[in-house]
Amino acid sequence: MPPWLLPFFSSLIFSQSITSSFAKFPPWYFPSSMIRPETPSSPDKNELYKTKYFTQILDHFNYNPQSYQTFQQRYLINDTFWGGPKTKAPIFVYTGNEGNIEWFAQNTGFMFDIAPEFKALLVFIEHRYYGKSIPYGGDRKKAYKNSKRLGFLSSTQALADYATLIIDLKNNLTAMDSAVIVFGGSYGGMLAAWFRLKYPHVAIGALSSSSPILQFENITSQYTFNNIITQDFRSESENCYKVIKGLWREIEDTAGWLSSALVYVSMTDYPTPSNFIAPLPAYPIKQAIDDPTLGNDTFAKMYQAANIYYNYTGDVKCFDLDDDSDPHDLGGWQWQACTEMVMPISGNKEESIFPASTYSYTDHVKYCEAAYEIQPRPTWITTEFGGHDITRVLKRFGSNIIFFNGLRDPWSGGGVLNNISKSIIAIVAEKGAHHVDLRFSTDKDPDWLRDVRKREIGIMKDWISEYYHMHSS
Amino acid sequence: MPPWLLPFFSSLIFSQSITSSFAKFPPWYFPSSMIRPETPSSPDKNELYKTKYFTQILDHFNYNPQSYQTFQQRYLINDTFWGGPKTKAPIFVYTGNEGNIEWFAQNTGFMFDIAPEFKALLVFIEHRYYGKSIPYGGDRKKAYKNSKRLGFLSSTQALADYATLIIDLKNNLTAMDSAVIVFGGSYGGMLAAWFRLKYPHVAIGALSSSSPILQFENITSQYTFNNIITQDFRSESENCYKVIKGLWREIEDTAGWLSSALVYVSMTDYPTPSNFIAPLPAYPIKQAIDDPTLGNDTFAKMYQAANIYYNYTGDVKCFDLDDDSDPHDLGGWQWQACTEMVMPISGNKEESIFPASTYSYTDHVKYCEAAYEIQPRPTWITTEFGGHDITRVLKRFGSNIIFFNGLRDPWSGGGVLNNISKSIIAIVAEKGAHHVDLRFSTDKDPDWLRDVRKREIGIMKDWISEYYHMHSS
Repeated sequence: MPPWLLPFFSSLIFSQSITSSFAKFPPWYFPSSMIRPETPSSPDKNELYKTKYFTQILDHFNYNPQSYQTFQQRYLINDTFWGGPKTKAPIFVYTGNEGNIEWFAQNTGFMFDIAPEFKALLVFIEHRYYGKSIPYGGDRKKAYKNSKRLGFLSSTQALADYATLIIDLKNNLTAMDSAVIVFGGSYGGMLAAWFRLKYPHVAIGALSSSSPILQFENITSQYTFNNIITQDFRSESENCYKVIKGLWREIEDTAGWLSSALVYVSMTDYPTPSNFIAPLPAYPIKQAIDDPTLGNDTFAKMYQAANIYYNYTGDVKCFDLDDDSDPHDLGGWQWQACTEMVMPISGNKEESIFPASTYSYTDHVKYCEAAYEIQPRPTWITTEFGGHDITRVLKRFGSNIIFFNGLRDPWSGGGVLNNISKSIIAIVAEKGAHHVDLRFSTDKDPDWLRDVRKREIGIMKDWISEYYHMHSS
Repeated sequence: MPPWLLPFFSSLIFSQSITSSFAKFPPWYFPSSMIRPETPSSPDKNELYKTKYFTQILDHFNYNPQSYQTFQQRYLINDTFWGGPKTKAPIFVYTGNEGNIEWFAQNTGFMFDIAPEFKALLVFIEHRYYGKSIPYGGDRKKAYKNSKRLGFLSSTQALADYATLIIDLKNNLTAMDSAVIVFGGSYGGMLAAWFRLKYPHVAIGALSSSSPILQFENITSQYTFNNIITQDFRSESENCYKVIKGLWREIEDTAGWLSSALVYVSMTDYPTPSNFIAPLPAYPIKQAIDDPTLGNDTFAKMYQAANIYYNYTGDVKCFDLDDDSDPHDLGGWQWQACTEMVMPISGNKEESIFPASTYSYTDHVKYCEAAYEIQPRPTWITTEFGGHDITRVLKRFGSNIIFFNGLRDPWSGGGVLNNISKSIIAIVAEKGAHHVDLRFSTDKDPDWLRDVRKREIGIMKDWISEYYHMHSS
């Protein structure tokens, strides 16, 4: 992983970046992050949902006076298809990621696609400290001012928000008996899986898509992430791989710009054109690498490849490599990576398509101390949610989770790739990218993707019928 | 429930108690609370365990600067019987209650009794804010000064303490692979069950004894608690029941003193002499009620009954009804009842052995506002841990929990009394009292008690062998 790209995970640049060049690298490295302005790829958002707010408590786990403060948490709701509380119609809840919830709702077409069949109520809950769900009076500047105020941004607080909001919503709808299934992709997928494990009394099951819940401590190799990216390119063309690998020495200045294209093109190597992180053609890796008209001009080839990611629409006239805008409001992820989301990744293998780099926890800490005067807690996620030896732990504990992973997605290395039990199931798509299953379906979807979704639908139907069967018995 | 006895659960007295008489009623109502000085009933404590301390983080769920404060958490350890990390020998951990951990260790003889058979390491962890595990430099006065400091006293923080300490201890012993089983009685039993549900990656199973995890919101009737006490006495003697019931009008001044004897004699109606809450003979209820020498003198009978509880040893020369000492250091429970442990109990039924009383949440809130300037969160426990419809929720989720309850124990009404699944099992002893299974065994234990313990041992052996079997496969 190129160190100048990845302030949280890398090492070499830290001493420089903190004082000089760091500011230009927004924290867009986590799976769902992105570097383009919002471009809804779906129907008019006014038709998709209504926006509501819930008065949420700031701190669920303490009882000092400041913990009683509240904030307005945004959620989106669609009851067009809902069968209502008296039928056996479920409630589908998206557990929001590190960003504006509208963006995730608009890019989780799967829930809209299947809602009519399930007669489901759809709810998308925004994660605290993102989008419009900002404590301290909704004032982002105030809430992000210092670690004293940012301190309440944590995954456990977010999960407790979801539990509190869902229970209240069900009470208000007199739908206490309705089955809830949680959905999420990437960090939202991690939250969905953890929510099922921690709040089984609130959600009967979870579809956890592309959730690298094992990318912590030493559970997954630090090299897996880069190895997958390397393999993605190498499998399409050994020549491409060699071109890129040889290129690094030549292009220092544009390196950050280029590497992020590689990362995101890998993550979004979807079988049909997409607009999730940036507008892209179908299978962009293939498109990017083999244009015979370019001959042996390495830079021309590289430009072609990067252009696929940064400018597929052709609208962008020149590239601003210093762009530090954060259109999807992901700034909080930097804080989360500095507190609990410590996910070691490095590119120190000879064969990597990226320049060598070594993950250094010490540098990670240095950065966080400089940025927030705070120390990460690198073992907290596994203490709270587990991860080590997950098959043994969950084989006879817990139920009703689907872990989807596409093997083209570099984050799949930290995902659950094997069935754990009869009802904690791994669905793996060899050609799949980052939570491809959650996208709106199209006529051009390949068969394997249709099959993945069919399987997911079938499993969720079983959960629901079992739940209502247990009730009536 | 007599309102003047139970500041947290009752109602009528609140307006008075806050200003006048409240101070004399220490918060000793919860199952494990007591009103006598510590009187170890077991072998010399120096032989039972060694005392150690762990540097614990003050706030696991937030990341503001104050959350990084630490405190010294006490735990007791006994490695006499341990097979060591390389064998398949387990670690038995007691999840400490609302009091001095030494007292619980000394009264949980079952763990010492069975340790040799299991070659188990024994660990007893003290609950934060109790005993010697006090934040703010170990200074109880400082830590209890106001809600700002007491705010970190909560069940979720305590569970995270246990997870953090256990993981660290296992690392230090290079015993990461050793199976952990958690034990607890009463509130400690609630914590043990919740720990298994929330931290299955840390504990492979839980023995949760006399844990009223369903005594929240409207899950269990408010009247059950008193009905059980009434039935305990009535089943021994209808006459006794009538005598007590008719007595209330006659004895206003001594009412609190008397009613607490009734409560605790019910809770500790053990088959052999005990010294858990106070020194008592075997089956104290039977002893208390039918002394033919007293004829029809109601007060003499009452004195006899109360004397069994307050003065079985004969050492006490006179009774100080205003005694507000708190020898077992249970003061924090009052705070917990004012924040999350809101367990509605009332005695408003005609047939109750106690005077009528009605639970009033409004009065509960009034008291807590006056005492701590704080509002309870009465739905938090069910939001975080569930409870409603528990059979449906856990039938296919979770595993390896034993819920023991003695039906003589008034807290059994809020316990899990039916099997939930093949490995979430209820063991119910008709004649059992408050976590009687956890006491040291004696030659005089009745057969049913021996059978209960045999069953518990057998089930735990199955958990352990399954755990190691899964590992090797």
